[in-house]
Amino acid sequence: MTIIFNKVSIIGLGLIGTSILHAIKVKEDQKVLTFAYDINPEHRSIVSEMKIATYVCDDIKETVQEADLIILAIPVGSMKSVANLIAPHLKPEALVTDTGSTKLSVIKDVMSFIPTNNYFIPSHPLAGTEYSGPRSGFSALFENRYWLIVCDKETKQTKELALFFKKLGSIVETVNVDYHDRILAITSHLPHLIAYTIVGTASDLESDLKNDVIKYSASGFRDFTRIASSDPIMWRDIFVNNSEAVLEMLQRFNEDLSDLQKAIRKKDGEKLHSFFSRTKSIRERIIDAGQS
Amino acid sequence: MTIIFNKVSIIGLGLIGTSILHAIKVKEDQKVLTFAYDINPEHRSIVSEMKIATYVCDDIKETVQEADLIILAIPVGSMKSVANLIAPHLKPEALVTDTGSTKLSVIKDVMSFIPTNNYFIPSHPLAGTEYSGPRSGFSALFENRYWLIVCDKETKQTKELALFFKKLGSIVETVNVDYHDRILAITSHLPHLIAYTIVGTASDLESDLKNDVIKYSASGFRDFTRIASSDPIMWRDIFVNNSEAVLEMLQRFNEDLSDLQKAIRKKDGEKLHSFFSRTKSIRERIIDAGQS
Repeated sequence: MTIIFNKVSIIGLGLIGTSILHAIKVKEDQKVLTFAYDINPEHRSIVSEMKIATYVCDDIKETVQEADLIILAIPVGSMKSVANLIAPHLKPEALVTDTGSTKLSVIKDVMSFIPTNNYFIPSHPLAGTEYSGPRSGFSALFENRYWLIVCDKETKQTKELALFFKKLGSIVETVNVDYHDRILAITSHLPHLIAYTIVGTASDLESDLKNDVIKYSASGFRDFTRIASSDPIMWRDIFVNNSEAVLEMLQRFNEDLSDLQKAIRKKDGEKLHSFFSRTKSIRERIIDAGQS
Repeated sequence: MTIIFNKVSIIGLGLIGTSILHAIKVKEDQKVLTFAYDINPEHRSIVSEMKIATYVCDDIKETVQEADLIILAIPVGSMKSVANLIAPHLKPEALVTDTGSTKLSVIKDVMSFIPTNNYFIPSHPLAGTEYSGPRSGFSALFENRYWLIVCDKETKQTKELALFFKKLGSIVETVNVDYHDRILAITSHLPHLIAYTIVGTASDLESDLKNDVIKYSASGFRDFTRIASSDPIMWRDIFVNNSEAVLEMLQRFNEDLSDLQKAIRKKDGEKLHSFFSRTKSIRERIIDAGQS
């Protein structure tokens, strides 16, 4: 097996960062050296104990200075400050990528810090669970999941990065930045916003009702509470940094919801039935696409 | 084991009806005779082939005339016409229940048809999947799930019904009718409405984007498409028949969503973070309650 990057640095030891470490350990040649860092010393010591990184560094400079590939697996709101911190210590030709869920903002925040003899290629693994923190990672997280590389044209570096992600189990595709942010707004960001909202609405109910909502939480609500238990900092940053695309999708959603609200008020069974039948076919196409 | 009802009639052979048949077969004494009926002849012949009922009847009259317990496992919009059909054929003292997700409407639709020497006690198993039809049932569906009996006071009949549901695996509790409809509006009906809406919004996107939404459907959206693939007729009837409680919860939801929308527009990270942190605790309580 060819080693694509000999030394890989992971900054941010949450679900994504530790899953990358697990996956490198399981799927990559053992000769790959990994350097791990998190701003939280507790996360660093957990990862040390787990022995999933070659080196856990207490200094962000040490983490990056030898690396061929640096992966920023941090909330998108921290990209700017971390890019600023690591930029002076990058090895010539080193490649920087990230795993954030908003791409326009990350490019804006990171690109200007990257020296001219380095590369920054944003990326985004479409993989996750509702769990967070260093103990939540696992090697199979990226298995058969898309990992999007955001670029306008293929280069030697985008190809190497794609090869690396494929070795971690992913299906790699390249997309344009605006398109990425709109797709994610509807497939991920808006559903999370809605789930957070409905769980919040339930938690504002009078106390008896609220307790029984928890007790009797049926399918539907239960799924929403799972989605709404994801990392609050990560999601805060996503909504602040992809506000434009999210607000656009939210407006469309609100219009559709108003229509259904009116149909319920009028007890217009025909309209409700035709709407509910239409959405069933989308599910069937997702199952066909193997992403269910 | 004491047999509570010797002859049980199941009307409606979808997910709930066939799951009851499976569960009786697995968990009840083999001496219990079951009579199965569905308005759709195809469903009847599938259930005949599966051999999960003692008798599959082509006539609704035959299905009920000997039964001690009749369970209406049909969409709530069909309760009225079915109650009208079966009422003249009920054996004296026979007990009728239903499994519908709205209870005020079912009581209104069914009660007036029930002869004075019979009993109608509405009930609702908080169990389900996104699948529908006679092949979707399975005996463990009710295992450790709540089965709510809607009544104001306990009687010999409510106790017998509770015992029967417990033998099918359920945890049985009694609730008041208005309370039931409000709890279900927030835990089940509103989440389904929202899921249907967002999948509908996505299916209205321009065609390229729509295809990639399906392709890249991430956690969040994928869960919503699952919820939104439930039986359209069942859901049409629920929204028409629980419109008041659903519209009340929807109004609260809309107010909360407007607040979050404003916070996103203003990029008010603090407000978003505090909202997202609050909802996490609800999930933890659901996990503690063993309903996750």
